[in-house]
Amino acid sequence: MIFPHENLKNFKDAGKKILEYLHNHLGFSLWMITRTEGNDWIVLQTEDHGYGVKSGQVFNWDDSYCSQMVLGNGPRIAPDSEEIPVYAKAGINKFVDIKAYIGQPLFNEDGSLFGTLCAIDPSPQPQSIEGASDLLELFSSLLSRILQNELKINEQKRISEKFQMDSLTDHLTGIFNRRAWDNLLDLEENRCKIYGHPTTIIIIDLNDLKYVNDKFGHSEGDRIIQKTAQILKKSVRSGDLVARLGGDEFGILNIETNLENTQKLANRILESFHKVGINAAIGIAVREPDKSLQQTLIEADKQMYKNKLKIKSGFVDN
Amino acid sequence: MIFPHENLKNFKDAGKKILEYLHNHLGFSLWMITRTEGNDWIVLQTEDHGYGVKSGQVFNWDDSYCSQMVLGNGPRIAPDSEEIPVYAKAGINKFVDIKAYIGQPLFNEDGSLFGTLCAIDPSPQPQSIEGASDLLELFSSLLSRILQNELKINEQKRISEKFQMDSLTDHLTGIFNRRAWDNLLDLEENRCKIYGHPTTIIIIDLNDLKYVNDKFGHSEGDRIIQKTAQILKKSVRSGDLVARLGGDEFGILNIETNLENTQKLANRILESFHKVGINAAIGIAVREPDKSLQQTLIEADKQMYKNKLKIKSGFVDN
Repeated sequence: MIFPHENLKNFKDAGKKILEYLHNHLGFSLWMITRTEGNDWIVLQTEDHGYGVKSGQVFNWDDSYCSQMVLGNGPRIAPDSEEIPVYAKAGINKFVDIKAYIGQPLFNEDGSLFGTLCAIDPSPQPQSIEGASDLLELFSSLLSRILQNELKINEQKRISEKFQMDSLTDHLTGIFNRRAWDNLLDLEENRCKIYGHPTTIIIIDLNDLKYVNDKFGHSEGDRIIQKTAQILKKSVRSGDLVARLGGDEFGILNIETNLENTQKLANRILESFHKVGINAAIGIAVREPDKSLQQTLIEADKQMYKNKLKIKSGFVDN
Repeated sequence: MIFPHENLKNFKDAGKKILEYLHNHLGFSLWMITRTEGNDWIVLQTEDHGYGVKSGQVFNWDDSYCSQMVLGNGPRIAPDSEEIPVYAKAGINKFVDIKAYIGQPLFNEDGSLFGTLCAIDPSPQPQSIEGASDLLELFSSLLSRILQNELKINEQKRISEKFQMDSLTDHLTGIFNRRAWDNLLDLEENRCKIYGHPTTIIIIDLNDLKYVNDKFGHSEGDRIIQKTAQILKKSVRSGDLVARLGGDEFGILNIETNLENTQKLANRILESFHKVGINAAIGIAVREPDKSLQQTLIEADKQMYKNKLKIKSGFVDN
């Protein structure tokens, strides 16, 4: 069962509700959630009834009452702030008229200061507001927790994105791996079925890699694989997919194109290979309306093998 | 600057502090945070001053005041609960003496019910407690947000773990890939330097994969690669590392062992290969105190190649 309810979406939302509550129950003209960044004192949110302070405004942290409060030089609740020496002589008094102050630090997970939850009023306030100290402390703890959780969620998302990227790329070349190729081929197959656009697959298979690995060691083989990936990546349009499918096999998914253009692309690739001494066989196949991309892949593989035999027998025309 | 402060670590911690605050300011003998799971009503946390209810206890949800409260059949604050018909006839009255009730729902992100924040007392309470309704609502919203964030962090961690696993495994065989091999080799190198334990590397290189791929297609080649991975995985001890390093190349990192044992392992592997018709060359190298594991890897690669030449020239003794 789903209940209609007002969910607090995030730190900002939670802060807004807390500021509203505090204004309704404790008064004060201005309530703020702030953040410190070096000597900048940044206003994140306000519940403003007279001062005209807006979120995004930046003040000088050293001038603020809050900078004294977090150091323990002044109390967190000051019904008559002119009585507190460090508040009475704070730089901010030159710009703003303050007679009462409330401040509560907000912390990052590691105990460093994030900012403050604070309030000011142009008139002294009754001593009774001091009774709200434990509520203020609890609110700032809850708000800190919500903030810290959001930062943690962001961090986890970043880690997850990095691992996802790693899981889809070939470690040696940085291009897509077999896992990405299989996934993206499935996605493209669905689009081909719906939109019927022409799509071709090119299979590139290095001819001498085994020989190079055996003769010159795997590091020389690795260098050729990396060079091959670079050439393929440079040769295709940005929407095309290039992947390393196996040790010496690469695939290109060429979207919205025809056999003629794909043949031209294949020729350009072979020319680039020739210039740097890479020897490879290429196979091309077009997806027909009654064939899947997986079948097209098998067809391209067969074509590649035919061309490989021609190379071996002297007919180097692929 | 790091400030000494009491951080709320999580949902449990935040709940504890809220229950303490509510008991101190609104009274009531028992405050609880609960969760509903089908008809089970599970007590997660308590601030108990007389009822003897403990976290982990399970009651019947349908018997509870809270089940009526979330449906809107009874008020969230009932200073004299006997006056409310649905509360007066609730099943739980058979077991517990209740004269005053407070309840506030806690929600999951999607608006479904997670549980409740609630309180009971054996005596009617003053009408003035009704003034706390917005504070109770705010606390339950903040607590719901903290709960939802924690569930989201867990979800993100699971996603991240899955992608990490993917990023370190070879898609075709499920064993570690080159990325994992390089990372784990670095980690092991550090341990070798500190503890000086003997470590050997085996390199396995399939002989006919290229031929199989070209002659029978890549799917047959893929089958042989999968079978090879299975045999290697079965042959080693659980602490050893098996990875696919390239198209037809595999590596084993054999920890805390000597050349003799590794030679035996290599022979077992070759026997298993022979039984299923897999043809491969194997190279072995031991890490010497003045050699790194990367150098050992190169040495194993060279040994493998020597054995491959012997196979080709007829000396099949590796």
